Amino acid sequence: MDKRAIGVFDSGLGGLTAVKQLQKIMPNEDIVYFGDTARVPYGTRADDTILKFAMQDLKFVLEHDVKAVLVACGTVTSVALPTLEKMSNVYISGVVEPAAKAALVATSNKKIAVLGTSATTKSRSFEKAMKAAEPSVDVLSKACPLFVPLVENGYFNKENKIARDVAEEYLKDVEEYGADTLILGCTHYPILKDIISDILKGVNIIDSGAESALVIEEYIRKNDMKNEESRKGICTYYVSDSVDNFRELSEIFLETELKEAVVKVSIDE
Amino acid sequence: MDKRAIGVFDSGLGGLTAVKQLQKIMPNEDIVYFGDTARVPYGTRADDTILKFAMQDLKFVLEHDVKAVLVACGTVTSVALPTLEKMSNVYISGVVEPAAKAALVATSNKKIAVLGTSATTKSRSFEKAMKAAEPSVDVLSKACPLFVPLVENGYFNKENKIARDVAEEYLKDVEEYGADTLILGCTHYPILKDIISDILKGVNIIDSGAESALVIEEYIRKNDMKNEESRKGICTYYVSDSVDNFRELSEIFLETELKEAVVKVSIDE
Repeated sequence: MDKRAIGVFDSGLGGLTAVKQLQKIMPNEDIVYFGDTARVPYGTRADDTILKFAMQDLKFVLEHDVKAVLVACGTVTSVALPTLEKMSNVYISGVVEPAAKAALVATSNKKIAVLGTSATTKSRSFEKAMKAAEPSVDVLSKACPLFVPLVENGYFNKENKIARDVAEEYLKDVEEYGADTLILGCTHYPILKDIISDILKGVNIIDSGAESALVIEEYIRKNDMKNEESRKGICTYYVSDSVDNFRELSEIFLETELKEAVVKVSIDE
Repeated sequence: MDKRAIGVFDSGLGGLTAVKQLQKIMPNEDIVYFGDTARVPYGTRADDTILKFAMQDLKFVLEHDVKAVLVACGTVTSVALPTLEKMSNVYISGVVEPAAKAALVATSNKKIAVLGTSATTKSRSFEKAMKAAEPSVDVLSKACPLFVPLVENGYFNKENKIARDVAEEYLKDVEEYGADTLILGCTHYPILKDIISDILKGVNIIDSGAESALVIEEYIRKNDMKNEESRKGICTYYVSDSVDNFRELSEIFLETELKEAVVKVSIDE
């Protein structure tokens, strides 16, 4: 029994797709969420900038005495995870390994496509993780640098023409490649899932945030660290930019009204 | 005679459209440029975040002993100019007043459209400036939050399908409105000028960065502050993210190879 919260952080709103899954599979657990909405997006920046921001993010989350941390950001996982793991003894999971494993289970034709940010694609993190486990797998990585701005600006409904045009353009290569499994390698991308699955009909879609939530659950269960109080867990949200913007868009990510506190903080000083 | 440099800053690459104009009309002048590429875009963030970033930007530029500062960013001008003006005695020009004046001169039907970021549009800065000078003018302000990500990610060629799709979507309202004059209220937007003028044929296009460079020239000339050395001015570029990315994209903004130094700096500590 461990009453401490689970820490989750992301460059912005994307990590909420992992929070949603955590709340579904571990409704009793408290969560401390940080979204660096003042500096989103991360995935178009240089590695040393991403590393600096990621270390500040983790430091903030660790100040809240958490029992495990989910790095709910494909870019941070791809660029900074080994460095972050050295920062404390608290268990940390990223989103790359969990999604890579799930994709290898799902594929039949061993052709897997990965959508990610520019930094994630450049790092080849998902490809490396999959090839280490299954050398015969074939991987196509596709950078989608406009997906995060689309999502963070509210362009993601199935009917949104701009979102669909951008997705069609990015997914052309994936369609031609003939993957039977697609990893959404950025936690913002599940918000575009309706559009993506409409374009790539019949393809298995792996949600990296949701898969990594399962890994956190497994760690907590196996180490007897569950919060066994019989009440619904509380999620406290911290952001570096506007509380109102976050509150408004978060409801779309969480698919429910956000009743809990959202607190604005400065983490770069 | 004043040999000090002119300071110019922007959230990222956009301000280079003003640098290009400064170099054209005052080839002898030295320029110190700062682009906050680690935190771009500004225009989708909350006012207090923009204000904080803008004050850090100006502080950095002022450390270089400049004789005038061009705030080459529509968002910063719209949200933070009065606060920035109080920070020092150095002359500061933003991009709103110069563009507003030029638009009033250019219009015949007194219907002017303004394209800007979300923060700029919310501030109604251009509309207020124009109505103060000419109350009978009619203004349509249109937020284009994806234009900065498009430009900063290299999507701006006339042939680029994504850039054209996004522009067509944003410009629908402007076309229906029937403006004869359009202000590009963000210094990133002139990079999309070919696409914009192709969609809005025959409309006068006002480049806010270029107009504000003319105001800086006028201030320097009228105050006998020209650099009269007979050599080409030097521009030193400072950025907060990758030097290589900046160097690569800057050549498209400046339409010439960037031979000068680009230095990475941290301004948020």
